[in-house]
Amino acid sequence: MIEKILLGHGSGGKLMHELLRDYFLPEFSITEALDAALLSEIPGRIALTTDSYVITPIFFPGGNIGELSVNGTVNDLSMMGATPLFLTAGFIIEEGFPLKDLKNILSSMSSAAKKAGVKIVAGDTKVVEKGKADGIFINTSGIGVIPDGVEIHPKKIKPGDVVIISGPVGTHGISIVSGRNGLSFDPPLLSDTKALNYLVDELIKASIEIHAMRDPTRGGLATTLKEIALQTDLCIEIEEDKIPVLSSVRGACEILGLDPLYSANEGIMVLFVSPGDAQRTVEILRKKGEDLSTIIGIVKEEPSGKVILKTKIGGTRLLEMLSGEQLPRIC
Amino acid sequence: MIEKILLGHGSGGKLMHELLRDYFLPEFSITEALDAALLSEIPGRIALTTDSYVITPIFFPGGNIGELSVNGTVNDLSMMGATPLFLTAGFIIEEGFPLKDLKNILSSMSSAAKKAGVKIVAGDTKVVEKGKADGIFINTSGIGVIPDGVEIHPKKIKPGDVVIISGPVGTHGISIVSGRNGLSFDPPLLSDTKALNYLVDELIKASIEIHAMRDPTRGGLATTLKEIALQTDLCIEIEEDKIPVLSSVRGACEILGLDPLYSANEGIMVLFVSPGDAQRTVEILRKKGEDLSTIIGIVKEEPSGKVILKTKIGGTRLLEMLSGEQLPRIC
Repeated sequence: MIEKILLGHGSGGKLMHELLRDYFLPEFSITEALDAALLSEIPGRIALTTDSYVITPIFFPGGNIGELSVNGTVNDLSMMGATPLFLTAGFIIEEGFPLKDLKNILSSMSSAAKKAGVKIVAGDTKVVEKGKADGIFINTSGIGVIPDGVEIHPKKIKPGDVVIISGPVGTHGISIVSGRNGLSFDPPLLSDTKALNYLVDELIKASIEIHAMRDPTRGGLATTLKEIALQTDLCIEIEEDKIPVLSSVRGACEILGLDPLYSANEGIMVLFVSPGDAQRTVEILRKKGEDLSTIIGIVKEEPSGKVILKTKIGGTRLLEMLSGEQLPRIC
Repeated sequence: MIEKILLGHGSGGKLMHELLRDYFLPEFSITEALDAALLSEIPGRIALTTDSYVITPIFFPGGNIGELSVNGTVNDLSMMGATPLFLTAGFIIEEGFPLKDLKNILSSMSSAAKKAGVKIVAGDTKVVEKGKADGIFINTSGIGVIPDGVEIHPKKIKPGDVVIISGPVGTHGISIVSGRNGLSFDPPLLSDTKALNYLVDELIKASIEIHAMRDPTRGGLATTLKEIALQTDLCIEIEEDKIPVLSSVRGACEILGLDPLYSANEGIMVLFVSPGDAQRTVEILRKKGEDLSTIIGIVKEEPSGKVILKTKIGGTRLLEMLSGEQLPRIC
C-alpha cells in the first residue's frame, strides 16, 4: 500500500487519477474531472480573491493548513461584503509527504468549507521532488457575490467613523510562534482561525452601516490600520487599553519579544462603521459569541495617513507598517 | 539596492508593500490593495478553474513559468467553451530569488494576459526560506463565462464524432526535457505554450458543433483520450500516422526513450466534433495558422472505455493512461 506521495502522483497519469479518486474527490464538491468547473449564473457583483498558504508547522495549535486555507479565503471575500460561494484548491506537495496527513488536511478543508457554506469546485495537484518544497503548500481562490445595496470599501470611511475589533488580537501569530518555540499554556493557546462570513451576514442583515472591514492577517492590526490610513488619507486613532489581547498572548509576547499589534490574526476583523451603529455592532458581535468585541478607536481628518496609538500611560505613539519579517510563514 | 527576495517580502509589512508597488501592481490590472477584487456582474454561466505551476527550469526553451501560468489557465477555461475573463495569481517565492527574474516573469504574465484578453485582478505573494521551495511556484485561477447556446462537455460525445488535433503533439514536454538533457536542435525546439481561446472563439463563431475539447497537458494525448473514453464509455480509435509530431520532437523522443503521445502539450487541443463539421473545423484551424491541424480518429461505440491506436505498420495497440512519472515538473 502506498503511504507517501510519489512523484508519479503529479504525473497526470494513472497514479494521479487514483489520488484524486481516493483522496480529493470524496472531500470536495467535484463530481467529474473537467478542465474547469461549470457553475450556474451568479446574479450580482462578483468578488474574486486568491491566497497561498505556506504555514509551518502544517499542523499547528488549533488547526492545520487545510482549514486555514479555506477560512482565510472565505474571510477575504467577506471583508468586501461578499457572500462566499465557490473555492478552488491548488496543492503543491513534496514527494514523500504522508498520505494520512494529506487525508487529514483534505478532511479539514471539507469541514471548514461546509461550516462556511462554500463549495470547493475545482482543484489541482502538483508534486515536486523531495527537498523542493516543504511538505504541502495550498492555494485557494474564491468567488463571492456582493448583495445588492452593500457597498463596503475603504474609500467610504469618513472622519467620525468608529473602529471596532471583533475579538482579541495577535492570537494566531503568537500561538504559532509559541508552538515553534516550545512554549505551552494552560489552557492551551490556539490559533483563532475561523470563517467570519456568518458574523458579517448578521451585521448586514441588521443594516449596520459598515464602511469598510479588514481581517488583519500578516502584519497584524497595526499594519492593516496603517494601510487603511494611507488608502483613505485619514487618521486612525486607537486606544491601547481598549484593544483586547488574551493574557496568554500577552505573556508569550513578553517572553518572545513580540508585539501583538503586529502579529497575524486569522479569525478577527476590524470594522469601520458609522458612529450611530457602533454600539449596535458590538452588541451583535457579542451576541454571536465574540465576547471581546469592542470599540477601539475613531477616524479623524488629521494628521492624514497616520495611525495614532494612545498608550496606556497616557502618551501617543505613531504606528507604522511592520518592517522586516517578524514571523515568517505564519499563514 | 535590494536584488533578491528577502523573507521580509512576505511579511505583509513595508517590504511587501514596496514589492507589490514596484513589481506586481505595474504589471497587473490591480489598482488598489483590497482583500478581494471587485468585479461587475458577469451575465451568463460561469466556469472556474485553478492550476499551480511548478515547472523546472523556470525559464525554458520558448517561454517561462509566467506565461505558462496564464496560458494554461486560459486554456482550461477555453476547453469548456468559456470565454476567459479574469485571473488571479498566487506566488510562492523562495528567499534569495532574483528580483530581475521575478520582473521578467511578471512582465511575461502581463503580456500573455493581454494577448489572451484576460485581466489579472487579484494576487498574493508568500515567501519561504531558502531551500523550502524551488525558485518560484505560481498558481493561477480563472473565471470565464460560457456564451449562450454553447454546451461543451464530454457527455455530449457520440459514436461517429470525429477526433481532431489542432497541432503537433509532445512539443512542450519534449522541449523541456531536451533542455534539461542539454540536447539542442536547429531550428531550436521550443515549448508550444500559447492561449487557445482565440481558436475556440473562431470555431464557436463558425457554429462548429463541438461536443468536447481538452488540452492534453500532463500525461499527454494518450492519457487525455483514455480519460475521455472512460468518462463516456465509448471507444476512441486514432491512427498513428495521422498524429502530427515535429521531426525534432520525434528525434528527441528516440534519443531520450520517450513517447510523444504521453508528453505534455501546452498549446494544442483535441476536439470531438460532429462528422459534418470535421472538415470545416480543420480548415478554420489551418486558416488561423494551425497548419498541422488534422483529423486523427473517430469515436466508436465499442469496445467501451478503450483507446485504440492503429499503428503505422497496420497493427493496433491499446493506449492506457501514463503510468508512473515520465517527466516530473513539466508544468
